[in-house]
Parts: sequence; C-alpha cells; structure tokens
Amino acid sequence: MAHLLSVSCSLNVSPVSKPYPKWCNLGSMVSPTSLSFCIDKSNVKRFFLHGKKSQRVQIVNAATIPFSQEAITNPTASNGYSTETSPKPKRVMVIGGDGYCGWATALHLSNKNYEVAIVDNLVRRLFDHQLGLESLTPISSIQNRVRRWKSLTGKDIKLYIGDICDFEFLAESVKSFEPDAVVHFGEQRSAPYSMIDRSRAVFTQQNNVIGTLNVLFAIKEYREECHLVKLGTMGEYGTPNIDIEEGFITITHNGRTDTLPYPKQASSFYHLSKVHDSNNIAFTCKAWGIRATDLNQGVVYGVRTDETEMHEELYNRFDYDGIFGTALNRFCVQAAVGHPLTVYGKGGQTRGYLDIRDTVQCVELAIRNPAKRGEFRVFNQFTEQFSVNELASLVTKAGEKLGIDVQKISIPNPRVEAEEHYYNAKHTKLIELGLQPHLLSDSLLDSLLNFAVQFKDRVDTKQIMPSVSWKKISAKPKTLTTQ
Amino acid sequence: MAHLLSVSCSLNVSPVSKPYPKWCNLGSMVSPTSLSFCIDKSNVKRFFLHGKKSQRVQIVNAATIPFSQEAITNPTASNGYSTETSPKPKRVMVIGGDGYCGWATALHLSNKNYEVAIVDNLVRRLFDHQLGLESLTPISSIQNRVRRWKSLTGKDIKLYIGDICDFEFLAESVKSFEPDAVVHFGEQRSAPYSMIDRSRAVFTQQNNVIGTLNVLFAIKEYREECHLVKLGTMGEYGTPNIDIEEGFITITHNGRTDTLPYPKQASSFYHLSKVHDSNNIAFTCKAWGIRATDLNQGVVYGVRTDETEMHEELYNRFDYDGIFGTALNRFCVQAAVGHPLTVYGKGGQTRGYLDIRDTVQCVELAIRNPAKRGEFRVFNQFTEQFSVNELASLVTKAGEKLGIDVQKISIPNPRVEAEEHYYNAKHTKLIELGLQPHLLSDSLLDSLLNFAVQFKDRVDTKQIMPSVSWKKISAKPKTLTTQ
Repeated sequence: MAHLLSVSCSLNVSPVSKPYPKWCNLGSMVSPTSLSFCIDKSNVKRFFLHGKKSQRVQIVNAATIPFSQEAITNPTASNGYSTETSPKPKRVMVIGGDGYCGWATALHLSNKNYEVAIVDNLVRRLFDHQLGLESLTPISSIQNRVRRWKSLTGKDIKLYIGDICDFEFLAESVKSFEPDAVVHFGEQRSAPYSMIDRSRAVFTQQNNVIGTLNVLFAIKEYREECHLVKLGTMGEYGTPNIDIEEGFITITHNGRTDTLPYPKQASSFYHLSKVHDSNNIAFTCKAWGIRATDLNQGVVYGVRTDETEMHEELYNRFDYDGIFGTALNRFCVQAAVGHPLTVYGKGGQTRGYLDIRDTVQCVELAIRNPAKRGEFRVFNQFTEQFSVNELASLVTKAGEKLGIDVQKISIPNPRVEAEEHYYNAKHTKLIELGLQPHLLSDSLLDSLLNFAVQFKDRVDTKQIMPSVSWKKISAKPKTLTTQ
Repeated sequence: MAHLLSVSCSLNVSPVSKPYPKWCNLGSMVSPTSLSFCIDKSNVKRFFLHGKKSQRVQIVNAATIPFSQEAITNPTASNGYSTETSPKPKRVMVIGGDGYCGWATALHLSNKNYEVAIVDNLVRRLFDHQLGLESLTPISSIQNRVRRWKSLTGKDIKLYIGDICDFEFLAESVKSFEPDAVVHFGEQRSAPYSMIDRSRAVFTQQNNVIGTLNVLFAIKEYREECHLVKLGTMGEYGTPNIDIEEGFITITHNGRTDTLPYPKQASSFYHLSKVHDSNNIAFTCKAWGIRATDLNQGVVYGVRTDETEMHEELYNRFDYDGIFGTALNRFCVQAAVGHPLTVYGKGGQTRGYLDIRDTVQCVELAIRNPAKRGEFRVFNQFTEQFSVNELASLVTKAGEKLGIDVQKISIPNPRVEAEEHYYNAKHTKLIELGLQPHLLSDSLLDSLLNFAVQFKDRVDTKQIMPSVSWKKISAKPKTLTTQ
C-alpha cells in the first residue's frame, strides 16, 4: 500500500520560453516522449519512455535524477523578482511540495532565494481521481508549475518524483540534493480520508509513519546536520479542559516536578498518525541528535500567496469537498453557490486557524532559526481561534456585503468530537521568531468569498456534503460510485 | 513486509494417544501429509499439501479453518486436570499464543476452562532462525504443543496460523471463533530487534501498528462486544521525574483541571510502537465503543508456570540472548555458564518486574473483569521495581548458595536511556482485582538459576553480548553472518 508511485525521470527540459498547453497532463508534458510505468513481479516500478522517433522502450528504474538538470549548473539565475537576498542561501527539500501547503511553501522559499527541491509522489492528485473530486481552482501539472516559475523568476525548483516510503528513492534524493533543511508535508493529510474505510485508515498510518521514519533515517545516514521541519497538527492535542501548551507541559505531581510531552488526544486515524510521528521524531532527536521542529498547524484557509498569484499556472489548489476541504474555505464555496453552510452538530467546535500566507512565513521562520542538534522543538502554528459557528457568522456577514444571502444548516456531526468545550491554545513561539500574522479581517474574507464566486461555475455541489462517518467506518472497502 | 506468513490449514488431527516424535518439525508434524508454501505473483500465499499416497498437489488458500476441528464437536472434554470450573466458559483468542508470554497465557486460560484459540504466524521462530538464536529450553512445535496439551488435559486449543496484518485471515478467524475476549500479544516485542537496522525498525512499527489496527477493525465489524486485552509495556512511560500513574494523570494547570493520558516517552522503535497502539486503541474506544484493557507490562522473568511444567513438550521458551533476552533471565544464564553479568552502563536503570506466573494471572483477571463498552482502561502490570544493579546483586547472592562465583562487568550501554533516575510507578489496579503476586524471593531465584544450570550445555555464549546499538543503527541492512 505504501508504494503508490515511486519514480522520477531524467528528461531534458525544453527552454522555458517554449509555449506549453495550459493545464496539460503528464502525457503531453513529456512530449516529445511519452511515459508509462508498470510494477514488475518483484514489485519494482519501471518506467518506459516511448520516444516518438523510435519505438524502442527505454527502461528507467525508479531513480532520483533531478527533473530540471540545468538548476545544477545555473543555481543563481534570477530575474530579480525578489529583492531579498540571503547571505547563505540554504538548500531546502520540500516533501509534499505539490500539495496545498507544500506548493505555496516551495514557491515562497524559492522566492526567498533558498535553493528548493520538491519531493512528491503526486498521490494527492490520484486521490482526487479516485474519489471524483477536483480543486476549485484548475491546477497545472507539477512539471508545468515548476517550468512556469522558472520562466517568471529565473529560479529553479528541482523535482524528485517518487514515494518517500521507498527508502532507496528517498536516500538517493537526499544524497543528490544535500538539503540543509527538509520540510515534510508529504503525508496523507485528511482526517475524513483516513476514516473512509479500513484500508484508508491503514494506508494513512502506514504511509505517514513509515514515510517519516524513512526521512529520519535518511537524515541520520546521509545528512546529519539537516534540520527537519515536520508538519504536525493542532489536532494532536484534542480538546483538553486545560490550556494547550506548545508541545510540553510542566507538571507538579505528588511533590515532584517534570516537564513532559503534552498529553495527546487525537480524534481520527490521520490525527493519530501525526501523534505517532511526533513521538518517533522526539525519540530520534534524543537518540541520534536529530534537530527537528514539529509545527502543530491549525486549520489553514485562503489560497493566494504572493507567488501563486503571479500566474494562473502557479495557482494553488483549493479544496471545498467533504474529504479534503477545510472549514472556512468550504464555507466560502458554499456561500458562493448558494449552498447552506454545513455546520457539523452544535458548531461549538473551536480550533486554531491561520492564513496560508502565514503557513509559508512560519515554515521559513523555522528554517531560518533551526533547532539545535538533538532538540525536538514544537511550535503551535496558528494565529486565531474560532468556533465553527463564529466562522459561519463571519461568512454570512461577508456574503451580505456582496449581496449573497447565506443560510446555515446544522447537520449531524460525522465526526466524534466535543461540540462545546474549553479551548485555549498557546501560540507565542512563532510570534517570538518574528511571525507577522495575517488575521482574518473582513477584507480577506471578502476577497476569499470573491475568489470562490469567481470560480463558482467549477463547483460540483455533490462534493460538498460529508460522506464519511467516524462511527460507521467499516472494515469493508468503501466503493465509490458515480452518483 | 507485514505479510510474513499467513496461512492455516485444515488437517485431520490424529488421536492424541498416537506417539509423536519429540521436538518434531513442521514437516514431520503433518505426516502423513507434508506441507509447503509459496507466495505467488499477486502476493497471495498458497499452501501445498503433498499426500503420501498421491503426489497431486492440493492448493489451500490462506484460510482460517481451525487446526483441531474436533474441538467444535467436543468442547467440554476434559480429564479434570483443573478442578476450577467457570459457570460461563468464555472464548478467548490469544494472538501471539506461541510466544513466551502468549504460550503460558494460552495454557493458563485453557486450564481455567476458557475456550482458547491461538492465532500466531510463528514469525518469532523465524527471527531465531534468521538471527542464529535459540531458546535455552528446547521448544516443541506449536502443533505438538497443542496436541500434547490435549493428551494431558483433554482440552482443545484451536490454532489459527496466519498473520493478523492480513485482514482477510484475521476477519475469518474472528468470525469463525467468535471470541469474547482477544488477548493481543502478537507483536514484534524486542526493543533491540527494532534497533538492528532501518528495515527492522520499519517492520516493527508497521507490523505492530497495522496488526493492532486490524484487530480493532475486526472487533468493530464482527464482534463488537468483544473485550480487547492488549499487551503494552511500562516502557511507554519512559523514566519521568514524577510518579508514573496507571495510564492517566490528573493535571491542574493555570487554574483548570483535567484528567489526561499520561505523557509517554518511549525509548526504542519497539516501545514507540506500543505507544502508537495505545493511542489508536484509546481513540477507537471513544469513537466506536470498543472495550479495551491496555496492560502496561514490566519486564517478565521466570519460565515455569503450572501448565508448562506438566510435560517437556509444553516447555516455554527462555531467551537469554542480547536481542530477546530480558535482564533477570539473561543474568541467570550468564551466572550458570560463568559469564560475567553484563550490566549496561551504570546499572541504575530501574524498571518494574514480574514473574511470568503473574503475567498469566493478570491477563485472566483482566478477562474476568472486562472493561465497559467504550472504556479504555490501563493497568500497570508488574509487582516489584529493581535496578539492574539490584538484580545483579540478587543473582550474585543466589549463585553463592549454589557455589557459583558470579562476576559482574559494566559494559558500554548500547541503549539511550538514563542510568540514574527517579522511578516510582503505581501498580494497584490489578492488586485490587485480586492479583496475588509471586515476588522475587530467594527460592524463586534459586530455582531459576538452577533451571539455567540444568540447561547450561545448550548455552551459546556468542549470543550473550549486546550486538545492537541505539546510536549506531543504520539505514543499511545489517547482515548477520556466522562468527
């Protein structure tokens, strides 16, 4: 299950000035060669390059040659889009760099003059195909994204297409790119996805836990000074009846005192996988001297960052469906198409939220201020707390300004979670490092709603309602059929 | 990796009075048929039964027909070895029932008139083959063990030979046996094994976490009233500077109070896998109403239980090697062969310990007093605390009585752990349920040492020293060669 797609290929990249069909798929991307793959008996993935001039099939074993080779010979090329320069450009590997947070982060870091490589198996795109989902925004292939970025800024982003659960692939990527920091977004990141059925639950934990173990081993073996910046989630803490601290809590008990990992109470197989990761990482920091920052991120909203809005081929994905869509983004789409806002249960569920522009800022702050050798550092990465009802009210108010009549309905909560609870989570460490939050102002919400309205013709309303139940999850595979 | 061996077969069991060769292997066991297996292209394991009279190969897909079919038609047969009867005999599935704790537990429960089924993929025996290790005691095949038990007591123990990471196998086992309780010992249980190399670390977490997830799904889907009794470890807690409670701790923080999961600080990939399990189980209790008891067991010593000493074919395994051997058992073997007791580092490492006769008692107490629906209950399962130095002193003293001059050496600690620390762990819940501990008395230690002396000709001293380092673990496969 873990080995979903593990391959990268060494293709000559055509000059960036060459016109490319918009939103072209993988097949057209690699023209004049086309590409297919198979899994042989020994479970080794093999790629076949079918050249137009010759039908001879060239077998390329899963490998890690960077997609854009020219980056190696021309690492500093830039058209000066960013005026900020770093005295010591660092090499940052963004695992999961084709995803929602990963893509925005990769561009932001590249724009800040870090040398960036994206590692991704593109399985997030496969999930969309399999579940019949689609981003509100049309998104370009990762190859075209990177090419467009190069044409606009002169900056290279290397691509390593493969699965980090395949250690051989990961090891070769790390040895080849020699990162100073690894930002690890490369996990199955949806709680509902992990609760579809047994096989998705197992996939989520296997993929996330083993992938992260492999990253830790790769750093230990090949790049021991490298700083691991790992995306965790605020959901690891659950909703305790005491204040949530940043990773650790000092407890006095029976007259003795110790500072211990903050107790975790995750509430989906996805959230649990992040708890497992945190525990594994903490151990390797202690045992091997790994330097790591665990970013316990809140719910991310928004879609535009300085970099992604430069060109439509750089657009970020925007998920509004019941599996991958997160609360505020989903509400904006619902409002845009005249669908009532779907509040799960009582709507008192309170969580930390942040703008995606702060996600990229936080990651850069973590990289710029690395953990020490052996340090396991935890930052709570969010800027504001809202209940679901509060979010619904904000969207309703924003709708009024645009002349949209926004309704709200309460639907049975598909999750198992407290719907009225205490919630007060600390989040000062990133502020201390210099985070300047983009708070959820009226203007941001207006623009987000406007954005949703702009793309409302692309909305498939069948994707909106939750289709996954925490209690009804079955061991039997859930077969998804067209409706 | 997870699918190591997943097979069971429906064979007619010969009458128990028939003589069997001692310590016979799998091949001779199934005579007049012999048995082999292969893994086909689609990764499905297939068994081949080779009848003596005919060479026609009969393919038996991995299935779950109980090994001893007659148990179904004759469930109450007994030669009255145990006088204790239970008004409502319960059906208990012991996963990992061929292992050190599992075998002793399966016999104990059978003797207490529970209907018992053992589920095991026998991979623990494979580890011995691969690592060149051997139990101090010669152990019989699981098939002969069960047959001997039947001949001595008239009691049936069903066998389901297969891998719980194979959900289809597990589901069929659960549907067929209909357990009221599942005791889950079926995990890779050695910290050093999990620290041999990357592939063993990954195997340990994948095998343990996915196996337990499958058990949870099988209970939810097919046996929702079933009580899960899961073997955890005291090692999940690490060595905090405050008292260790039983699973949960009440914390008052900034004027508010909550009872939360006790913070975990595991110190090997094995111990971490148990933490992951605990977190997963706790979630399913809350979300699905699973009833579960997590037995955070200390270090087990001893080898004899009332049942295993009935016949040499029922003997339990006794591990003294650097991978699977635990402190006190290993020290007794070292003393018996005149090898200095190997104290890792300063020897101040303090842990909870218990006699294997208390392991079986604790499990039975947990089964007899099941958790409520939705309850996640944690018991700390040990009876006494000792430091490594204290154990060494006890063995030295016991050696003197037998005229053995016991030496002790400090060797560099292969683990990453505190060697001098506070340790005070609560362990009252099992006492409250009626546990009557077998404390580590002089007489027990004398008999354990005598036991080791009895088998000292079987000791392979090359297995004694630790061969695995927590810091030197590599991503590269560690190839074990003969020395």
